[in-house]
Parts: sequence; structure tokens; C-alpha cells
Amino acid sequence: MTTQETKTLLESFKAGRVSIDDALRHLQSAPIIDLGFAKLDTHRALRKGFPEVIFCAGKTPEQVLQIAGKYYSRGRRLLLTSVTPEQARKIRARFKSAVWHQPARCITIEKQPQKKRCGFIGIVCAGTSDLPVAEEAAVTAEIMGNRVERIFDVGVAGLHRLLSRLETLQRANVLVVIAGMEGALPSVVCGLVSNPVIAVPTSVGYGANLGGIAALLSMLNSCSSGITVVNIDNGFGGGYAASQINALAAGGNS
Amino acid sequence: MTTQETKTLLESFKAGRVSIDDALRHLQSAPIIDLGFAKLDTHRALRKGFPEVIFCAGKTPEQVLQIAGKYYSRGRRLLLTSVTPEQARKIRARFKSAVWHQPARCITIEKQPQKKRCGFIGIVCAGTSDLPVAEEAAVTAEIMGNRVERIFDVGVAGLHRLLSRLETLQRANVLVVIAGMEGALPSVVCGLVSNPVIAVPTSVGYGANLGGIAALLSMLNSCSSGITVVNIDNGFGGGYAASQINALAAGGNS
Amino acid sequence: MTTQETKTLLESFKAGRVSIDDALRHLQSAPIIDLGFAKLDTHRALRKGFPEVIFCAGKTPEQVLQIAGKYYSRGRRLLLTSVTPEQARKIRARFKSAVWHQPARCITIEKQPQKKRCGFIGIVCAGTSDLPVAEEAAVTAEIMGNRVERIFDVGVAGLHRLLSRLETLQRANVLVVIAGMEGALPSVVCGLVSNPVIAVPTSVGYGANLGGIAALLSMLNSCSSGITVVNIDNGFGGGYAASQINALAAGGNS
Amino acid sequence: MTTQETKTLLESFKAGRVSIDDALRHLQSAPIIDLGFAKLDTHRALRKGFPEVIFCAGKTPEQVLQIAGKYYSRGRRLLLTSVTPEQARKIRARFKSAVWHQPARCITIEKQPQKKRCGFIGIVCAGTSDLPVAEEAAVTAEIMGNRVERIFDVGVAGLHRLLSRLETLQRANVLVVIAGMEGALPSVVCGLVSNPVIAVPTSVGYGANLGGIAALLSMLNSCSSGITVVNIDNGFGGGYAASQINALAAGGNS
Amino acid sequence: MTTQETKTLLESFKAGRVSIDDALRHLQSAPIIDLGFAKLDTHRALRKGFPEVIFCAGKTPEQVLQIAGKYYSRGRRLLLTSVTPEQARKIRARFKSAVWHQPARCITIEKQPQKKRCGFIGIVCAGTSDLPVAEEAAVTAEIMGNRVERIFDVGVAGLHRLLSRLETLQRANVLVVIAGMEGALPSVVCGLVSNPVIAVPTSVGYGANLGGIAALLSMLNSCSSGITVVNIDNGFGGGYAASQINALAAGGNS
Amino acid sequence: MTTQETKTLLESFKAGRVSIDDALRHLQSAPIIDLGFAKLDTHRALRKGFPEVIFCAGKTPEQVLQIAGKYYSRGRRLLLTSVTPEQARKIRARFKSAVWHQPARCITIEKQPQKKRCGFIGIVCAGTSDLPVAEEAAVTAEIMGNRVERIFDVGVAGLHRLLSRLETLQRANVLVVIAGMEGALPSVVCGLVSNPVIAVPTSVGYGANLGGIAALLSMLNSCSSGITVVNIDNGFGGGYAASQINALAAGGNS
Amino acid sequence: MTTQETKTLLESFKAGRVSIDDALRHLQSAPIIDLGFAKLDTHRALRKGFPEVIFCAGKTPEQVLQIAGKYYSRGRRLLLTSVTPEQARKIRARFKSAVWHQPARCITIEKQPQKKRCGFIGIVCAGTSDLPVAEEAAVTAEIMGNRVERIFDVGVAGLHRLLSRLETLQRANVLVVIAGMEGALPSVVCGLVSNPVIAVPTSVGYGANLGGIAALLSMLNSCSSGITVVNIDNGFGGGYAASQINALAAGGNS
Amino acid sequence: MTTQETKTLLESFKAGRVSIDDALRHLQSAPIIDLGFAKLDTHRALRKGFPEVIFCAGKTPEQVLQIAGKYYSRGRRLLLTSVTPEQARKIRARFKSAVWHQPARCITIEKQPQKKRCGFIGIVCAGTSDLPVAEEAAVTAEIMGNRVERIFDVGVAGLHRLLSRLETLQRANVLVVIAGMEGALPSVVCGLVSNPVIAVPTSVGYGANLGGIAALLSMLNSCSSGITVVNIDNGFGGGYAASQINALAAGGNS
Repeated sequence: MTTQETKTLLESFKAGRVSIDDALRHLQSAPIIDLGFAKLDTHRALRKGFPEVIFCAGKTPEQVLQIAGKYYSRGRRLLLTSVTPEQARKIRARFKSAVWHQPARCITIEKQPQKKRCGFIGIVCAGTSDLPVAEEAAVTAEIMGNRVERIFDVGVAGLHRLLSRLETLQRANVLVVIAGMEGALPSVVCGLVSNPVIAVPTSVGYGANLGGIAALLSMLNSCSSGITVVNIDNGFGGGYAASQINALAAGGNS
Repeated sequence: MTTQETKTLLESFKAGRVSIDDALRHLQSAPIIDLGFAKLDTHRALRKGFPEVIFCAGKTPEQVLQIAGKYYSRGRRLLLTSVTPEQARKIRARFKSAVWHQPARCITIEKQPQKKRCGFIGIVCAGTSDLPVAEEAAVTAEIMGNRVERIFDVGVAGLHRLLSRLETLQRANVLVVIAGMEGALPSVVCGLVSNPVIAVPTSVGYGANLGGIAALLSMLNSCSSGITVVNIDNGFGGGYAASQINALAAGGNS
Repeated sequence: MTTQETKTLLESFKAGRVSIDDALRHLQSAPIIDLGFAKLDTHRALRKGFPEVIFCAGKTPEQVLQIAGKYYSRGRRLLLTSVTPEQARKIRARFKSAVWHQPARCITIEKQPQKKRCGFIGIVCAGTSDLPVAEEAAVTAEIMGNRVERIFDVGVAGLHRLLSRLETLQRANVLVVIAGMEGALPSVVCGLVSNPVIAVPTSVGYGANLGGIAALLSMLNSCSSGITVVNIDNGFGGGYAASQINALAAGGNS
Repeated sequence: MTTQETKTLLESFKAGRVSIDDALRHLQSAPIIDLGFAKLDTHRALRKGFPEVIFCAGKTPEQVLQIAGKYYSRGRRLLLTSVTPEQARKIRARFKSAVWHQPARCITIEKQPQKKRCGFIGIVCAGTSDLPVAEEAAVTAEIMGNRVERIFDVGVAGLHRLLSRLETLQRANVLVVIAGMEGALPSVVCGLVSNPVIAVPTSVGYGANLGGIAALLSMLNSCSSGITVVNIDNGFGGGYAASQINALAAGGNS
Repeated sequence: MTTQETKTLLESFKAGRVSIDDALRHLQSAPIIDLGFAKLDTHRALRKGFPEVIFCAGKTPEQVLQIAGKYYSRGRRLLLTSVTPEQARKIRARFKSAVWHQPARCITIEKQPQKKRCGFIGIVCAGTSDLPVAEEAAVTAEIMGNRVERIFDVGVAGLHRLLSRLETLQRANVLVVIAGMEGALPSVVCGLVSNPVIAVPTSVGYGANLGGIAALLSMLNSCSSGITVVNIDNGFGGGYAASQINALAAGGNS
Repeated sequence: MTTQETKTLLESFKAGRVSIDDALRHLQSAPIIDLGFAKLDTHRALRKGFPEVIFCAGKTPEQVLQIAGKYYSRGRRLLLTSVTPEQARKIRARFKSAVWHQPARCITIEKQPQKKRCGFIGIVCAGTSDLPVAEEAAVTAEIMGNRVERIFDVGVAGLHRLLSRLETLQRANVLVVIAGMEGALPSVVCGLVSNPVIAVPTSVGYGANLGGIAALLSMLNSCSSGITVVNIDNGFGGGYAASQINALAAGGNS
Repeated sequence: MTTQETKTLLESFKAGRVSIDDALRHLQSAPIIDLGFAKLDTHRALRKGFPEVIFCAGKTPEQVLQIAGKYYSRGRRLLLTSVTPEQARKIRARFKSAVWHQPARCITIEKQPQKKRCGFIGIVCAGTSDLPVAEEAAVTAEIMGNRVERIFDVGVAGLHRLLSRLETLQRANVLVVIAGMEGALPSVVCGLVSNPVIAVPTSVGYGANLGGIAALLSMLNSCSSGITVVNIDNGFGGGYAASQINALAAGGNS
Repeated sequence: MTTQETKTLLESFKAGRVSIDDALRHLQSAPIIDLGFAKLDTHRALRKGFPEVIFCAGKTPEQVLQIAGKYYSRGRRLLLTSVTPEQARKIRARFKSAVWHQPARCITIEKQPQKKRCGFIGIVCAGTSDLPVAEEAAVTAEIMGNRVERIFDVGVAGLHRLLSRLETLQRANVLVVIAGMEGALPSVVCGLVSNPVIAVPTSVGYGANLGGIAALLSMLNSCSSGITVVNIDNGFGGGYAASQINALAAGGNS
């Protein structure tokens, strides 16, 4: 029941065309709560640049095309994650403005460029194995209107490289730190900065790594205060939460 | 090696009292990097109101007293978590300004009142069982300079109570959502707001709850974007990260 | 030993053609208990429309054909689950009345249409990923003589869609709620209705989802009373139990 | 916002004392959805005899007394589960009509006797170790208005005792089968009956039992169709779901 | 150092051709313990018909051929387990007496037929899914000189079929009971017999079956006394241990 | 329905006092299968010396006394396991022939001494920590009529002690090998003997021992053929199965 | 059979007092392999200062006293680990040279002081919670003849303290690094040194720490080469292995 | 900032070309700590023969070629692990000195032969299944300058073969013991020697082996002192740590 429909109902009631019992019954049975949600969704999209998101894993290229078409018609920005090469080829053939971020396995479609927020998000990882997850976080943050600094060759087994990037780490409004194996990088980074750190465990590793569980547990048990954690390989989730935080930093709650 | 010590060394070298080789050796072996850290630590305390924190579990009352004494002398604010009644009694006998937050099992000591940031943090949970963890999050956030709204009687099995608090949920800069059992509350809350949600699983439950693992997994696998998670029963961690975010919202990166 | 055989034995004994010791020995060694089972099985098929069921996973098309042929000769209704496309092709070539429910990966064969019970079963899920399991539950419930309402686009991250279907949810005799990821949907739905809710976790998800264990644990630990749970991806089991309940509702224990 | 309040608002609007914009704003921001819930809750209590339930574990006797007092004033039936002897003593001193079901660790309080439904629920277990959970299921079912048959000395290692109760098992509208150790009893029972079976694993066992996980997994993987499962030691949940089903059987959906 | 070598050493020492120190040194450094092992190994092969066994999984056909050739030259009986069709083809081309037990994925090669022991081993399972493991147990027991009764269509969800085989179950010296899913069959069977029961869990199942862990735990926690368990899918191990027991029954320790 | 009752029924039928329909109905509804069980149970007790067993953990001394009294009246031998000192004191006060095996935490009561079987069972463990479980296995085997050899100071970290007992190990009809920590002892022992080995993991250990799971997994994965496994700390189960095997060895299937 | 006994046997044989068959039989049945072990054990004690070790957990004070007495008579150095205060009191009353290392929960008894090896072992941990395990490692290493450097206030969340001890870390022959929580310290330390690092996880932590499993997994999955790991809380094992390595460094294989 | 750069800065300062504030700022912001690392890295490479290592799993042949080219230009020795046949072919086509160790799935490239250390490392395993991991350990140790003895046909189920290699085991400076299945071999070996034992679990096995977790737990819980453990299938890690220890043995800390 939209605002307009509610208004019409009220007016009909005032004009005597609708009895008070009928008005009551309509109001109670209709999902009036929808109004609040609609407001929320509009507010959300307008203010913070939240894109429409399609998680492509396990979908046929045709299904992806169909959903993308529907979303494209109603939104200004699309993000497709976990895109296979075949899906990517078809999407790019159909949407001329589609951009294929291969290392991130993502596609972004923007109807018009958006202005980036001031301040930046740091994306941190130790190297090539964790790169796809790190790039997914970075692309997500960028499509949501943030500037991103990539700090991609720092690991706990070589502290000097990490320390040489200290200033950048400290200037970021929020850091997304990606790590597989033993997952120690967020703990070390978090001890060096005063802003929030979002840790993303990856499934990189073998044996007692248990598909990323080792890194996940390591991050949850960090002795450094201020770390929060998302699911294994969830670069999108890390980038999304970081964007929410950076939006707060950029404009307060406005 | 402090800035002053480095300056003195340089002057001695310039004055010829120290050879270039000796100067080099001192500079290389000394932990000059300390300067950066010191700067960070000061910055951190000054700007964001980070308190000294003592995790009291597994410590004797005497050990707690001793550490609290040391921290009291150098800081302006102390937070003691997981405090036993016996520890609380001794701390309060010694520090007259100590405040005992019984439901949170926390003690706070502040030398002088601090001004609260504008904006607020919402702390959300379903009821009495999760209350100690929720209160620990709230007390942590408050001692770090934040205003807190407690939303403590909302659960997924009774949506109407949750929806009746919708406006407060949406106005908060950041929400800390605490839940045991099936841990579904953060997913539902996150779908209603556009700001960050920090989920804190608790060990409340039995059987297949596995000491909180069920709630933890539920939160990590949430289908709602924007949730990040901390360790089971880690109310302190949730409040701490929320404060970092709220500080960004209050003052940008200043 | 059928009732007729037992009767014959008793008559032979009465007529003196069989000694009392031989009669005793026959009665004790024969699986007389079979009588009870036979009665049960007949009763079951007659009253409740239980079909013969073939779980096709891991069987060759030939094995499936052979078993289906045997069952077809003795039953009125067949349900084949987890059917591969190749198996489906061969079954449909052989049984002209076979119906291929592709999204459910099921085939049903009915010798004659059956009358549906009054009342209905609601099948609830959040979207396309959980659809195969939800459809398996729906097809199972239908072949067992139930009317089914599909409520397939409701999730915990978008409560307004769920609430807009509130009336249908509340009118169903029993609900089968399917969910992967964090598995929170049954808890939320169960809080809205007063009839039984059967929860079916799916393996949809990744990382700390652990192949559906996260959703399973979430459902077992639900804070909503009245939820019972079946195995991961067991749409058939959910539909089967729902049919048993709906049959009770439709006709009491008659 | 109650029906009365909504009515008043509409009348004020019609009378011109409230503008259309104000009326709209009130309707949209108020939790009108509450009306639906209230209706549900009333309906629930009236028709099915749902009691107020207090889970007493981890609460002080005083807390239990306080909650019980509040619930007593508004409900007709109370069920307290996981009651300690000390809690029981205090409750019985306060509420003269309180009945202490010691083996079930439950207390029930009924303001007036209720009529039992026709048909019955069978509660099945193998013996003394699983008895507390079985009795909790039985007491729960009884306070919710059901007649209960206890079948408490049947186990998979002694089939003859189980088979000697075959007729009772088959006549029950629904069975709650409780088992610890290897948890095989529900599978065997389910093969003998055509009505629904709710399986309740218990934590009875040691070593590789893993606190009831072995029995839980056994039940979830049952090769018998029609079993649904609740959490370990959750006798209350088993009895509750069984009552919902028995209510359907007794009166259809009326 | 064989008995003969030791004898020769002693005689050389007595004859003075070897000093006492040299004799001591030889005796101490030589692996005299080998004598005991050699005796054991010969004894084992002669008395109990232990075959040479080759576990073929993960080996190339060429590797299997090479090992089989070596074993064939020194033994009288070969058992190859987990044989792939390609391996089977090559083995049968090379060894004319090779017998391909397709359902068991085993090949046996016997230079001459052996006399079977009196008494028999019962191999019990519920149906086609567990058949490969059951057949592996049966073929193993047969090649080791035992007579085997296959009882392959009995499950806990249909007790009447199981009870109709009661006499055979009770006459077996030892039973190997194979089950996947909930793994309840050994518990039920064990309650019906007085001889040892060896339980073999299989990985048949899905979801919370955890690759056979559910069945394994069920068997380890059986409330029936006298069950011992082997690894998941280890039909060979079950047949091997059963043969050891049947050999004891057939001839005592002679 | 006993044999006598069935006989009476048949005679009444022959005499015309019972109609054929009534006779049929009685035969079908009565648990005639009981006859087979009764035969089994008598056979079991007579031939193999199976005692009545009471698992005392979690029972009050009074409950134990009551059950023991009932069993004592009908059996010749009682075994009580997991007996607490307080339970032991009360049992011994009541039953003068009760014997308290303190290290095994067992009590045995025998109305008259029984003759031991020829051949013996070897009970093997590494030392004092595993002793309670090993003694439980030994006492169980003894009360069931077996002679037992205790080999209690042999471990994998000191092979010489193990090898010095080689002859005894090889002469045993069956070995029960108890081990905690890494659980390697059964694998090593099994490689030295040709008779069956029953492995009993214990919960002795800490950390990654996981309450005995490490030892259990080790035994299930043994590379030595012929090992079967029972639950963690289940000395009773190990002794029981060993007795079944030794009985077969002593008398074949007679 | 000692060397002397073997010699006597050979001489008796040569003198004709023992036949060649009897000599053979003695040699084969006797545990001649003992000679090698005895040599090893003596060698071990003489060269590397291996103490006798008593793990006191789960033993009565009397049992500890008895074992300590036996060991004291034959060894030069005793190490008792996991000593309770009550055990400590009794041991110190009996053995005047006993030293109570309270933080390590260890007692050492040395008949005479031993010379320490050159080179040293570094014991590293982050603070008071891990101290008992770290001290157990240190005391173990010291009683085995090593010099130890304690580096006890360094953690990954405060790199500056760790880096300020860099030189000591690099000079140690081997490091034992103890950590609970996320267990990241060994990875960071190992990246800074070129000598072996032994990682000891502790059970310090809560929630998803899983009793130290999180730290253990973290260490096993370290991305730093050269880390090896021992069991959770196994300070003794870490100190023991470090001593073996330091002994090699001090004297090669001599 | 290299030593030379620091020297130049100091001289410019002394000469007055740089102010003291500028000198301070340069010193503090530059990663002076690099000097220490650089020294370490050089030292490491020079003294201990540490090679550059490339873990090839999950990389394209092109990526491997590129990294190998970069490393080849700056190092003297390269080790590539987990090399696929296709990667191997391309590497060997490019680097003429590349050696393909097929069983180890490794390639080594050495610009010039290196002198081997005195003393040797023993690599121990039970047979063909564990061979790839054992060979990876051996090749790693060899490229790092160690002599290696392979002891590859010894298992706990056949102690005589193990004992026949006793002398070699005892002479090794350090042993790397590889085992899958139950993982008992390191415990048995460690009881026979006095030098360090590094245990490497493998994923060889099935069912309750859990991908090597069973062997890993077995090794972590060993009752033999002196065992340390690396990740499942981590032959490289075992060989690397052994080389560090052997280097200490060969030359002390020089």
C-alpha cells in the first residue's frame, strides 16, 4: 500500500464513500509496513550509492543476463560477483558499459560516473594467492563510491615491507585486511592503526587449513582490539562494510 | 630511542664527540621505529578516548589491583572486564571513583567526566540471557566516549517488538547486535538499516549450540550485506569496534 | 505366513493332519509378525496415498528403469528423486505417464489422478538458490495428495516481502521452510504462525557454511518453539513429513 | 497502535481535527503490524492452549518468581522447565496450584483444569537415562491439552519389548521418540508406524557421543521417511511440536 | 640372522674361529628379533590362509601389475581391493586365474582351491547402496578360507525382513554388518544374536552424514554390547577381522 | 505368549472352545516373536556366562541398589561398572559376596564360582593413566568366564618392553589393547600377532587429544589389518567382545 | 639379557655345559634387542642430560612420592611437571634439594649442579596468561643443561616491543614461541630469525578459540618456513625439543 | 634506507646542508628497520644456503616462469614445489640447469654445485603412498646443502624392518618422519633415537582419516618426547626445519 493509496483511502473515508470498518480492515490487513521499507530503500540508494548486486556462482549465463537486465532498468549501478569467463563474455556483449575486472572475477556497470567520497579505504593482503578476494573487496568498495588504496605485498613473515607502508595504513579511514594460511595479518595490522579493521579470511592453504577455517578462527581470536570478521573468501562483504564505514566518516550520518 | 635521544646523538656527532661509524651503529640497532609507535599511541589516546583495558578473568584480585594501579597512574580512563564479585570489591575499596557495572561484569574508572560524541551506538539483544554480553558492549562504548541506546527486548520470534523500534535502529550510526541460540537477529536487523552492523554471538544455548558456534556460523553466513562478526561472548570487542566507527562518523577522519 | 496360511495350518491341526508339536514349531519359527507389517503397509498405501519412492542418485539409468518397472507393477504412484537428465530421458521414453519436474529434479508417475486433501501445505524459501530443494518438497507433497502453496521469494533480509504473505503463511496447516546460508528464515516464520514448521537446511553457501551445517545448526537452535528439522537438502523428507501432518489435519486419525 | 486507537485517529481525521498529512504520518510510523500479531497471539492462546513458558536454567529463584508472577497475572497456564530443586521450593511456596513434576524438572500451574483433546501423543524412550527428557516432553504435551501415552522401556537392543507395544505405537497421532547413545530408536519406530515421528536426541552417553551429537546425526540421517528432529535434550520442543500436530488431528484447521 | 646363521656362528665360536667379542658383537647388532617375525609370518600364512593384499587405489595399472607379479611369485593367494575397471582389465590379461568381483571392486587370484572352514560368516546390509562395501567384506572373507552367507536386503526401517532372517543371523559365528545413513543396523542386529558383530560404516548418505561420520559415531555409541567397529567403507577390514574370529571358532587356537 | 500359552490356545481351538477367528486374532496380535527371544536369552545366559550388567554412572546409590536387587534375584552373576566409592560402600553392605575392584571402578557378584574357559585374553596397556579402563576390560572378561593376562607396562615409546612380552601376546586368543594419547599401541601390537585385536581408546591426554578423539581416529585408521575399535573409555565393551571371541575359540560354535 | 649374561651363556656353551639347541633357544627367545636399547638409554642420559620426568596431573600425592623415590634412586636429575600445590608441599618435605618453580608448576631435583651448554634457547611469549606454559618450557630447558633467555612481553599487537628484542631473538640457537588466542606470534617471530622456531599453542582464550585449537591451526598453517609445532599447552615438549636442538648446536653430534 | 644512504645523510647534516629537524624527520619516517632485515637476509642466504622457493600450486605455467625468472636473476639456488607436469616441461625448456624430481613434484635449479654439510638428515616413511611427501622433504633438504638418508620401507605394522635400520636412525642428526593413516610411525621412531624428530602427517587414507587430520592429531599427542609437527603433506616444511637443525649441528651457531 503506497502513500498515495493510503491517502486515497483516507479521502474516500472522509467523503463517506468508505465506512470506518472497511477503512480499518484495509489498514490492518495491508502491509503498511512496506511504506517504511520503501522509504528505507530509496534513502539507501540515493544517499550511499548502494549498487544492485548479482552473485553469479551457480547461475547459467542466461539467468545472469535476465537478472542483470531487470536490475539495469531500475538501478544506476550494477555489481556482478563471482563471474565466470563465459558469463563475462555474454554480459559484455549485451551491456556496452560493462567493465570486466578479471582478477576480481567481477563486472561493474555504471550508467554514469559517480563522484568519489573524500578519505579512502585501504585494502591489504600478502600476495598473489589472496589477490582475487582482495580485488573483489576493492572493486566492491569502488563501485560504492570510495577511493581505494591497494597494499598488496605485505605479509607477517616479512615485516619490513609492512612497516614501509605504515603511513598509508594509518591514514585510511578503514582497512580491509585479507589473509589465508594462518590469517595473522589483520592482528599485526590492527596493532599499528587506530581505525577499524575488517578481516577477510581466505581459503588459500591446505591440510590443517580446513578450507579457510584456520584463518577464520585466527581472526576471530585476535588479541588486537577493533577487528571484525566476515565469511571466508567474502571479499564483497568486506568491501561493502568498509564502504558503509567510510560513508559515515565522509559525511557523518547525513 | 626517543626523538630527544636521536637529536642528542645527531648533535654529538656534529660536534665530533661521536664518530660516523658509532652514529650509524646506534641508529641501526636502536628500535627507531618506536618513535612511530609512540606517536600512534599518544594520538590514539588523545583523539579517541581509548581507555586502558584489563581483562580480569583468570587473574587473582591482587594481580588485578597491581595492574590497575600501574595503568591508573598513566591513563585517564580504565576499563576492567570479566570482573568477579571478589575482584570488584577489592577494586572499589582501593579506587574511590571505580564504578561497578554488575550486569556487564565491568568496572570503569574515570579521573574526570568526558564529553560524549554526537550520534549514538545502538546495542540490540533479545533478552535476559544475552544481557551480560550486551551490557559489556554498552559499557565499553560509553567509556570510550559514545552515547548508547539499549534495545534489549527484541527477538526474531517476535517481529512486532523489533519493528516497533525501527526508527531508533535506523538512526544509529552503528549497531551492535548480540544473539545466542540460532543467532538470526543480526541478519534480520541488518536488512532494516543502512548503517554498519556488528554481530556478537553468545554462548547462550545448549546441545547443538556447541557453546556459541551455531550462532557464530549463522552470523558469518548471513545473507544480509554489511554484517561483520567478533568472537563468541566478546561484548568488549563489539563495543570497541562500534566506538571506532562512531568516532569516524562524529568527526570524519579528524 | 499370511492369514490364509495360518488359517490352513489351524484347520489341518484341528483335523488331526498336523500334530500339536508341528503346529507349535511352525507358528514359532514363521515370521508371523509379518502379518502386522503387511497390514500396516496396505493401510498406509490405501489411506494416505504414500507413493513408492526411488532415490536415483548413484544409480545407473538401467538400474533406475528396472526398479521403476518393478514398483510400477505393484503401486499406483511413483516418485523418483534426484533424477539426472539422462535418467529422466530414459524414464520418460519408457513410462508415457511420467512427468518430469525439472527444477525439482523429480519424476512422478501416476496411474490415475487422485483427489487432493482439503487444507494446504505452504512451501517457503528465499529464492533461486534454494529452489531445487523447495521444489522437491513441493512435488513430494503433491504426489502424496496435498495441495501446495509456493511462497518462494521471501527472506530475512527483506522482511516486507515476508510480511506481505502473512495471511497465506497463517492459513497453511503446516509449513516447510527451506533456507541455506545462515538458515534464519524458519525462526522468523515460526514466530508468525501457530501451526507446525518443518525446517529444511540447504547446502547453499560457501566458506564457514560448511556445506549446510551452519544452516542446520541455526535451525536446531531456533528460539522459536515448534520447529522441527530434517537433513541438509532433504526436500523429500520435509515434504513427506508435512504430508503426514496435513493428512492428520484433513481427516483426523480416520 | 490498537484497533481503538486507529479508529480514534480516523474519526479525528474525518472530523477535521487531524490533517491528512498527520494522519498519514501516524499510520506509517506506528507499528500497525502489531494488530496482526495481537490477533495471532490471542487466537493462539484461545484455540490451542499454548501456555506461557519460562526456561529457568541460569536464572536466580528470585528472577523466576518475578517472571512467573507477571505471566501468572495474564495467562491461564504456566509451564516452567529446567527447574532446580531450590527454584521449585520457592515457586511452590508462592503458587499453591503449582505442580512439581520432579523427573521432568518441570512445574506446571493451571488456573483451572482443561479438557484434553481426543487422540493421543505417544512418548517413547529406552529407559531411565533418557527419562528426564522424555518426561519434559510428556509434561509439555499434557499442559498443552493432550493425552499422553508413555512407552518408556523399549530399545533397539531388545526388539521384543518394542514390538509388544506395536499397537499403541500405531494408534498414536504423533510420536515423540527420545534416545541418547547411538540414537537409533526413532529410525526403528518410524518404520513401524504411518504417523509423524519427532526425534529428540539426548546427551546421554560418553566419549565419541560428543554430548549428544552422535544421536543427533543419527536421527538426521535416518533412512526412515517421516522423521523430523529437534535440538539435543529439547524435550520441551518435541512435546510442543507434537501438540501442534495433535491439535491439527483433533480438529483439523478449525 | 636366520637360525642356521646363528647356529653356524655359535659353532665357529666354539671351534675357536671366532672370538667371544666378535660373537657378542654379531649377536647384538644383528636383527635377531627377525627370527620371531619370520616364524610368525610363516605360521600366519600356513595356518590361517592369509593372502597377500594389494590396495590398488591411487596406483597406476603398471604399478599394480608389478606388485602383483612380485606377490604372485611368493604367495598362494592374492587379493586386490579398490580395483578400477582399467586395472582389472590389465590384471586379468596377465593372470589367467584372476577372478574379477565387479560389485566388490576386487580381484582374487588363487593358485589352487582351498578348503573352506566349517561354520560361516554372515555379511549383512540394507541394500544396493552399501553393496560394494558389503561385497568387499564377503570376498575378503572368502579368499581367507571362510564360507559366507549374504543377508543383503534387511534394514531398520523394515524390521519384518530382518526378523525373517533371524535364524541365519543367530547361526553365524560372526557377523559383519554394513550400514550407511544413520548406521543403526548393527545395533539392532547385535540385540538379536549372541556372537560378535563387526560394524562397518559406509559413506553412503549426504548432508549431515558428513561422509560416513554419522554412521561411524552411531556404531561406536551403540547401546548393544559386543559391537566393534572399523573405518568408514573398510569392507576389507571387516572381512579380515571376521575371518580371524571364524578361524578361532573353527579350530580354537590350533 | 509362551510356548505353553500357545499350546493351550491350540488345544482350546481343537476342542472347539475357541473359534478359528479368535485363534487367528490372538496369534497375530500377540508378540509371538518373544518365543524366539526368550530362547535366545536363555541360550545366551546358559552357554556363555553373560552376566547382568549395571552401568552405575549418573544413578543414585538407591537406584543402583534397587536394580541390583532385581537382577540378583534372577541371575547368577552381576557386573556393576563405573561405580563410585559411595555406591560401592552401599552395595558391599547389602551383598556380602560383592567384590570391589577399585582400580576398575567395578563390583562383581557371583553366586557361585564358575569354571574358566581354556585359552586366555590378553589385556594390554602402557601404564598407570590407562589402568582404570584396562582393569574394567579385565574384570569384565573375568566375570564372563575367561582367564586374563595383564600386560600393563608396554608402550610405543619403549619397544623393548613390548617385545619382551612377545610370546604372551602371540599366545592369546584375542587381545584388548587400551591406549590414550596418540593411540598407536594397537597398531604396533597388531603387527606382531595373528589373532584379533580389539582397540580401546581412552580420554587420557590433553589439548589436541580432544577427549580421546585423537586416539580413536588413530585406531580406526590403523594400517595393521585385524583391528576393530570400541568407544572411548569403553573398557567394558572391549572385554565383552573379547569374551565373545574367546568363547568361540574355546568351544567353536557349540 | 645383558652383555654379561650373553657372554656367560657363550662361555657355558663353549665349555659344553650348554647344548647348541639350548643356546639357540635362549638367544632367540630372550629380548636381545634390549642390549641396543640399554646402550641407547645410557648414552642418552650421559651425553645430553636427559632427566627423569614425572607428569603429575591426575596422580595422588602418594603416587607422585612413590614414583619420585624410585626415579631419584637411579637418576641424577628429576623433573616433575603439572605439580599441584599439595603435591609440591609433600615433595619438598621429602626431598630437600627439590626446587619449586611455582609459575611453571614444576619441581626440579638435581643431585649436583650441571654445567650449562654454550649458546642459549630463547623462550618467547606475549604476557601473563601464557606464562605458565612458557615457564614450563624454560624450566624444562634449564634442567636439561641449557641456558635460557626469557622474552616474555612481546606480542603481535605491539610490534615495537618485539622489534626492540630483535638482536636477542636472532642470537638464540633455537626459539620456543608460546601463544594463545590467535597464535600469530610464532609466524611473526619466525620471519625475523634464521634458526629453528618451535611453536607452542596455549589454551588461553575463549569462544571460537576452541580450547587452543585456533592457535594450534594458526601455527600449523604458518606462512613462515621453519616452524614446527607441539601439542596445546605442551611447554615441556617445546623445551625438550629445543634442548635436543641446542645440544646439537653446542656439540654437533658428539 | 641503506647504510650508505644513512651515512650520506649524516655527512650532509654535519656539513650543515641538512638541518637537524630534517635529519630527524628522515630518520624517523624511513624504514630504517630495513637495515636489520637486509643484514638478516644476506646472512641467511650466505651461511645456510637458503634457496628461493616457489610454491607452484594454483599458478599458471606463465606465472611460474615469470617468478622463476625474477628469482633466478638474484639467487643462486631455486626450489619449485608442487610442480605440475606441464609446469615442469616449460620450466625445463627455459632453464637448462633445471632438474625435475618427479616423485617429489619438485624442480631444483642450481647455478653451481654446493658442498654438503657433514652429518646427515634421515627421511623416514612407510612406503609408496607417502613417497611424494617424503621425496619433497628430501629434495628440500638436499637443495639446502644437506646429505640425506632415505629410509622408505619401514612401518609400525612390521617392526622388524624398522629395527633393522636402527643404527642409521640413531646416527642421523635429525629425522623427518612422514606418515599417513594412523600416523604412529614418528612415535615409534622417536622412542628409538635421542635426536630431534620432525613429524609430517600426510593425507593418505580414507574415511575417518579426515584428510590427514587423524595422523596430525596422532603426532601432536605422541607420548614420545621430542617430536614436533608440521602441516599435513608439508614435506617442504619438514625438510626446511630439518636443514636448519642440521646446520646448527654442523657448525654450531657459527
